[in-house]
Amino acid sequence: MYNSIQDTLIIGKKVIYLPSCHSTNDIAAEIVHAGLFAEGTIVITDNQVKGKGQRGTVWQASPGENLTFSVILSPSFITVSEQFLISQVIALAIRAYLSQYVGHVKIKWPNDVYVNNRKVCGILIENSIQGTKIAGSIVGIGLNVNQKDFENSNATSLSRETGNLFLLPEEFQKVLTFLDVYYQQMRSLWRHNDLRQEYLSHLYGYNETVTFNYQNRIVKGTVTGVTAIGKILVKLETEPEVLELGLKEIEWIIQ
Amino acid sequence: MYNSIQDTLIIGKKVIYLPSCHSTNDIAAEIVHAGLFAEGTIVITDNQVKGKGQRGTVWQASPGENLTFSVILSPSFITVSEQFLISQVIALAIRAYLSQYVGHVKIKWPNDVYVNNRKVCGILIENSIQGTKIAGSIVGIGLNVNQKDFENSNATSLSRETGNLFLLPEEFQKVLTFLDVYYQQMRSLWRHNDLRQEYLSHLYGYNETVTFNYQNRIVKGTVTGVTAIGKILVKLETEPEVLELGLKEIEWIIQ
Repeated sequence: MYNSIQDTLIIGKKVIYLPSCHSTNDIAAEIVHAGLFAEGTIVITDNQVKGKGQRGTVWQASPGENLTFSVILSPSFITVSEQFLISQVIALAIRAYLSQYVGHVKIKWPNDVYVNNRKVCGILIENSIQGTKIAGSIVGIGLNVNQKDFENSNATSLSRETGNLFLLPEEFQKVLTFLDVYYQQMRSLWRHNDLRQEYLSHLYGYNETVTFNYQNRIVKGTVTGVTAIGKILVKLETEPEVLELGLKEIEWIIQ
Repeated sequence: MYNSIQDTLIIGKKVIYLPSCHSTNDIAAEIVHAGLFAEGTIVITDNQVKGKGQRGTVWQASPGENLTFSVILSPSFITVSEQFLISQVIALAIRAYLSQYVGHVKIKWPNDVYVNNRKVCGILIENSIQGTKIAGSIVGIGLNVNQKDFENSNATSLSRETGNLFLLPEEFQKVLTFLDVYYQQMRSLWRHNDLRQEYLSHLYGYNETVTFNYQNRIVKGTVTGVTAIGKILVKLETEPEVLELGLKEIEWIIQ
């Protein structure tokens, strides 16, 4: 159903398609672990039984309606302290892909992509580190394409936003093409600052007033930036200084 | 849990371990299909949800108690007409491994291994053919090790036969070593006749009177041999001539 694609440089030259599996990230990790390593290899499934989300949460998707896959990368050209660049380019690639079809596509720090304030894509990046280098990176992507009904009212799909149904193999090829282009940019070290700027320009809450749950209080504030190691900078109305916060320290309230 | 082993020549140099999967043969096939090919690579799981048996049957095994894995081979040195050699060497390797622990280990044509007239191992070989050569061969092995209870009264395990419990990773390494040795023998073309003789000498019903279901009748007979392409030669009491039979034409009755 999903074939390897030949018009990319790295991403998707090899595609492993499994009608069903527990977690594409776990299978990708085992393939790397076994030394059967080809950068850009994709593991894709129609039915991910135990998909993983951020912070040990579960990623749920209806079988056969969405794109659920993992990309094996080897970004050994960046250091551990630069690893947030991976999140940035992946989110930017998905955003660029989606903005072919819909407007108002935002990246919700660190790794979600939203359309019209609803989540359309989740990204889970798992890095393995050797010394100060990123030896391997497994990028899990769950992109809602044709799913119409969601248990979570905060979720949406490309189909819900556009009213169209999509051919998954075609969209798969397009997404991979965007991932390939953005990954090439990350490989060009002189593009890193531009990528960080592009990420900020599409970041939900950047220079806007948005709502957070911070220390169990609902507070308004503004995102003022992201640090190189991936912490978010937030100026809350209730705090005098800009806060530098990690994943568990702040929660978004998106209405 | 299961690591690659370094004291073999081909088998098990790379091991992909999945806590759970649908079918190790299917994952192995996808890995080959993607071109991530390394001969001797193993896909092993603790819990095969949709294991495949011969002729589309289902292979069932209790999670975590047995060895359930697939081996990726590339026996391009043999022709399609010789493909039954693969069945022979795999069955011989499993038989040799088991005979370390128990006596009376028999190969039930074409691909089962029996101990004391009960099935202890099933083998499913799926070949892909290019011209007259075997381009790839995926060998699925389900070996009952520690399982104590079986729905099918005709099944047994190494543990049931010996009264001992086994450490699966250790047995895995031993089985792979036997598979490696026998696969080397198959690569030595001058050993093929010896392998065929060895297979016959361990074949259930060879030069013995056993019972078959043939054309819906229970009949006694004797196995007189196996042809090069893997048909079985049977002399039934009710038939004047030796019959050359394929998989669906005869059924064993093993009491």
